[in-house]
Amino acid sequence: MKGFFYPKSVVVIGVSQKTSNMGRMIVKNMITKGFSGQVHAVGPTGGVILGRPIRKSVKEITFAMDLAVILTPAHTIPELVRECGKRGIRRIVIESAGFSELSPDRKSLEEELLNIAREYRIRFIGPNCIGLVNTENGLSTPFVAVSTQFEAGKVSVISQSGGVALNYMDALAFEGVNFNKVTSIGNKLNVDETELLDYLVNQDDGTEIICMYLEGLKDGRKLIEIARASTKPIIVHKSGIGKAGAASAASHTGSLASDDKIVSAAFKQAGIIRVRSTGMMMDLVKIFELPPMKGRNLAIVSRSGGHGVIAADTAEHFEFNLPPFPQKEIKLIKQHVRGGVVNLRNPLDLGDLFDLSIYEEIAQQILSNERIHGLVLVHGYSEAEKEASRHFMGRVKELSETHQKPVALCLNIDDEETAYLRRNFDFPFYTSPEEGTLALNVSYRTHLFHEAHKSFTPYVKMVDTVPVSKILDRAKAENRNPSQTECFEILKCYDFPVPEYRSAKTANEAAAAAEVIGFPVVLKVDVPSIVHKSDIGGVMMNLNNTDVVVNAFEQLQARLRNHLKAGEGFATIVMKQADLDGQEVIIGIKQDATFGPVLLFGLGGIFAELIEDVSLRVLPLDRTDVVEMIHEIRGYEALAGVRGSTPKDIDSLVDQLLSLSQVAQDFQQIKEIDLNPVISYENGSLALDARFIL
Amino acid sequence: MKGFFYPKSVVVIGVSQKTSNMGRMIVKNMITKGFSGQVHAVGPTGGVILGRPIRKSVKEITFAMDLAVILTPAHTIPELVRECGKRGIRRIVIESAGFSELSPDRKSLEEELLNIAREYRIRFIGPNCIGLVNTENGLSTPFVAVSTQFEAGKVSVISQSGGVALNYMDALAFEGVNFNKVTSIGNKLNVDETELLDYLVNQDDGTEIICMYLEGLKDGRKLIEIARASTKPIIVHKSGIGKAGAASAASHTGSLASDDKIVSAAFKQAGIIRVRSTGMMMDLVKIFELPPMKGRNLAIVSRSGGHGVIAADTAEHFEFNLPPFPQKEIKLIKQHVRGGVVNLRNPLDLGDLFDLSIYEEIAQQILSNERIHGLVLVHGYSEAEKEASRHFMGRVKELSETHQKPVALCLNIDDEETAYLRRNFDFPFYTSPEEGTLALNVSYRTHLFHEAHKSFTPYVKMVDTVPVSKILDRAKAENRNPSQTECFEILKCYDFPVPEYRSAKTANEAAAAAEVIGFPVVLKVDVPSIVHKSDIGGVMMNLNNTDVVVNAFEQLQARLRNHLKAGEGFATIVMKQADLDGQEVIIGIKQDATFGPVLLFGLGGIFAELIEDVSLRVLPLDRTDVVEMIHEIRGYEALAGVRGSTPKDIDSLVDQLLSLSQVAQDFQQIKEIDLNPVISYENGSLALDARFIL
Repeated sequence: MKGFFYPKSVVVIGVSQKTSNMGRMIVKNMITKGFSGQVHAVGPTGGVILGRPIRKSVKEITFAMDLAVILTPAHTIPELVRECGKRGIRRIVIESAGFSELSPDRKSLEEELLNIAREYRIRFIGPNCIGLVNTENGLSTPFVAVSTQFEAGKVSVISQSGGVALNYMDALAFEGVNFNKVTSIGNKLNVDETELLDYLVNQDDGTEIICMYLEGLKDGRKLIEIARASTKPIIVHKSGIGKAGAASAASHTGSLASDDKIVSAAFKQAGIIRVRSTGMMMDLVKIFELPPMKGRNLAIVSRSGGHGVIAADTAEHFEFNLPPFPQKEIKLIKQHVRGGVVNLRNPLDLGDLFDLSIYEEIAQQILSNERIHGLVLVHGYSEAEKEASRHFMGRVKELSETHQKPVALCLNIDDEETAYLRRNFDFPFYTSPEEGTLALNVSYRTHLFHEAHKSFTPYVKMVDTVPVSKILDRAKAENRNPSQTECFEILKCYDFPVPEYRSAKTANEAAAAAEVIGFPVVLKVDVPSIVHKSDIGGVMMNLNNTDVVVNAFEQLQARLRNHLKAGEGFATIVMKQADLDGQEVIIGIKQDATFGPVLLFGLGGIFAELIEDVSLRVLPLDRTDVVEMIHEIRGYEALAGVRGSTPKDIDSLVDQLLSLSQVAQDFQQIKEIDLNPVISYENGSLALDARFIL
Repeated sequence: MKGFFYPKSVVVIGVSQKTSNMGRMIVKNMITKGFSGQVHAVGPTGGVILGRPIRKSVKEITFAMDLAVILTPAHTIPELVRECGKRGIRRIVIESAGFSELSPDRKSLEEELLNIAREYRIRFIGPNCIGLVNTENGLSTPFVAVSTQFEAGKVSVISQSGGVALNYMDALAFEGVNFNKVTSIGNKLNVDETELLDYLVNQDDGTEIICMYLEGLKDGRKLIEIARASTKPIIVHKSGIGKAGAASAASHTGSLASDDKIVSAAFKQAGIIRVRSTGMMMDLVKIFELPPMKGRNLAIVSRSGGHGVIAADTAEHFEFNLPPFPQKEIKLIKQHVRGGVVNLRNPLDLGDLFDLSIYEEIAQQILSNERIHGLVLVHGYSEAEKEASRHFMGRVKELSETHQKPVALCLNIDDEETAYLRRNFDFPFYTSPEEGTLALNVSYRTHLFHEAHKSFTPYVKMVDTVPVSKILDRAKAENRNPSQTECFEILKCYDFPVPEYRSAKTANEAAAAAEVIGFPVVLKVDVPSIVHKSDIGGVMMNLNNTDVVVNAFEQLQARLRNHLKAGEGFATIVMKQADLDGQEVIIGIKQDATFGPVLLFGLGGIFAELIEDVSLRVLPLDRTDVVEMIHEIRGYEALAGVRGSTPKDIDSLVDQLLSLSQVAQDFQQIKEIDLNPVISYENGSLALDARFIL
């Protein structure tokens, strides 16, 4: 990837002298941003641009060229790429639109492009993008005027949309945050977000914080892998297009695990911070420029009582503590208060305390206090206090660095002073206490995440998979899903507890099975084509003796005969009647197109159906991930024991979620698994029903 | 209230020549903002300020004075107010701090102040505030420099905090929104938010939109009454201090209905828009400057595909429809696209369409289309397109007015152009499509609310309340809560269905009652001091014959004897065993300190306990309110019929919620009511347990 960002020589293809020509703007951007290398121009009409000749073809250029930027009609691109290949250019940015984003029939054009790239070992970005910006060397390929000042910062951007990339550049500049590299990846036909992220995380020293705007994910699983290992914060605005996808799912798990929920779960698991707006993106970028918040004890100091209350309100929402200030600080403040009109609590309302040197001492006392992990400081000033305030805020910046604690500085100041500070004061600030407090919360949550996930060793369970393969192969050969008996067999291979059971194809077999298992038993029809067994009366419970079992079998057989598919034999499963006095949960697996297998957990029954209270994780995962997914459901208290009900065996649930994850890892041909219900007891748990969909 | 905002002559008390004097700043603000009346100054040190003398006392001023503004130490205030009273001043702003907000022992000072005010028929604002601003006449009493330009707009502000008031003024100015009146009410000892709101809503023609920042509510019920009748949008940032209040509640209803939830419910019911941040406040103020969005069909037009996707994503979240554009518009656009690189769907990506006159025609086509109710228009431009873009946006403003549809204009432009437009372009705009789309959603929801609540006739049920009074009086005299039998008697008076029941104090009475009621029956201990009956085994179900009833009675009596309070007799209630095959719901009442009685509804059992899925409304209410409260719970589908379960009788639930609301209206001495569970059937419903707390 480095070759894209640090070329010594760039050729722009598609340039003419016309003022409306967009290739011309690319050349102009490169020059005005002071690109450190050579810039060549190519276009069929020739002429001169910014003092340099426009060549008719790359063949006419004798200098070496590292990077080509092409902006010509889509149909001309393959031939131009080939010419570049012949001239030895191995990195290309294709900005032209008119490919598959416009119409599916342009897929063949994309294929052609990929083939040529393969032939010449060319890597390209795009098409349908505005390419690259690197403030370190002035590289700047957008085809619209780039007005942002280039001053190399530590924030880099990857954006699927060119418009959003430009907007991020403007928004960062507006916040006074300098950026390092920006890539607009468009259709990401060749280079995608995953490769770029890998580069920015693992190879690019200039980048310390990464912002992404994505509409789709090329390889979610790989993205998660890179992000999980990253110590650089990654903030992603993923728009949720394609949510409808889950509607057609076959299983309960399938429909509960919508594409968008999987994205959120996967990001969370990898420590990626997901935002839903540009404003939020900017708020969070700023907080990551500061030391992390390492605990939940927050101090709030405000010149305006109301803003202190607002900050405290937001802090309460995020479950921060507001510890009282120690006597020492209170004494200090008391000495300086005129008229005594200050309330010495946290949040601290500075009231009619106007001496900024006292503010400074208060900030110093608070930030050096071991019990405090971060500070929300609301300040506001007009002309008369400008100099003193600037000095004070400079000291706050130093104190934040010295004590390695974040300060969310929230300022009520006029436009002019805002503009001044953004240019001249190298410390982030917020315009409202809500934003600042929210940002501190993300800083703290991110810190917690990294503490909890310091190392990651994917869970692995070694199992003899041969019998499982046989079952799945047989089902596949017969073009059906496994029966419940077969599902239970598979679960047993993975030590997943199921009730004692036997398969029975006749009434006598059923009776014999019941005798062995012991009464009472449950008899269920067990035919792969019959999915919603209870809806058609295919389940008979509490069968107490042999006669009742024989009778139940005959009833089922008579009733369900015409539900069978042609050639399908009638069969049942006889199960030991399980104790129902526990908490129903649902455990499932879904294969996601981009993330691979996804594990689902939730409370059963009405919880899953109405509240959709489930948690998700992508595989592979570790024990910590699974513990977190159990804790994060809203109904967690029903497992922890509520109103006198006994706490359930959460360790056992963790084991079983891990076991099921291994099934999914070992056999990716299983599209969905529903274990619904699993009953969680005070000791252990038991899957009462199982469906595997191939 | 008008007297506060339109005085002909103002005296500022507490003025000196010192530059640090805050009273001096008040005088300066009045002069620099061009106050249209006289300004007098009073202060003990005398001297001259801004060319006018500082008098030692109001007594020395011979001119008439309509309004006094006082900023002197707290202990001096009563005497100064008295002097004002003697001089005939009837409106005062007290800005000084140092009252009950500082320490509870200052309550007596406040009392003194109120007495003097009463004596002289003085109305005052404050203390602990920055007072009043009126852009219509230049009135401006803050004791800090007011930098905002005064140009009379239609937005007025009431703020409990002076700092927040100033911040709103700055924020509105920053957004290019002109304000009309601002009041900072501080401790609201005399004039409170309710009176001011009433004035702004019903008497002040200059005010069309109202923003409020509140920390507490003086009279929630009155506030709701005024807001409900208002056609002017009211947006409130209420910070949630005091949430902890609900922790000590006695009943289930009490603990489920936290103070903050009641505030949200009451605001919703009255059409007040509650925001949680200043940013959101500004986004919404702007949208109310435009015509309302009258349907859910939204068009999205964007220069950047990515921003179109982001807008569509937000629109999906808010359940907007994005109808496809009709052929006519598509044809129009097709004629003008060069290279054909535009996707003609909604959201419309303008792609490489650069002719702004075509944009104008597209906007015209869309806004004149009957099927479209609003437009999100994302535009961005640099220097070269500035003039054309300004012209285009001017046309958009005209089109929005002509077709009476809102356009959320979202602009990606630089700081300078932003500042220019805010000064010179009288049409609101947003900096991101998320904000614009969110604002349109609020516009639409507010429109829907007003359609649904065009008229309000509080529900009234005429009931013979004498028997109910007797029951409650007796319980009160005996210093206890009503027994379940008594609660059922009360419910019956209000036609609230309960199972057939009898009270029984002996085994024989119980047996006889069961014979009359018919088996099976339920026997419950019914002693006011025993609250959690089932927790101590005080409920026996499914009693099938006389012997079983006698036996059950004896068991209960033996077991629970030592749970009785001294002097309390043992008693039971015998109830017809009800059909449990329905949906459990909980219905309740809570007396709130500021809103009065609050009605609660939710699904029972685990829903209420774990998810706290309940809805609330303050009384009085109408049928529409109750229908809405049933629909808004998350678990509503459990009532509507889900997965083959039968739909429940929602009409009957509505009747019963209304009946219970009448109980609460008639007998405000009832602090809390819990009907838990009420079983909702396919036809009708039945309260199986009832607790009234006096």
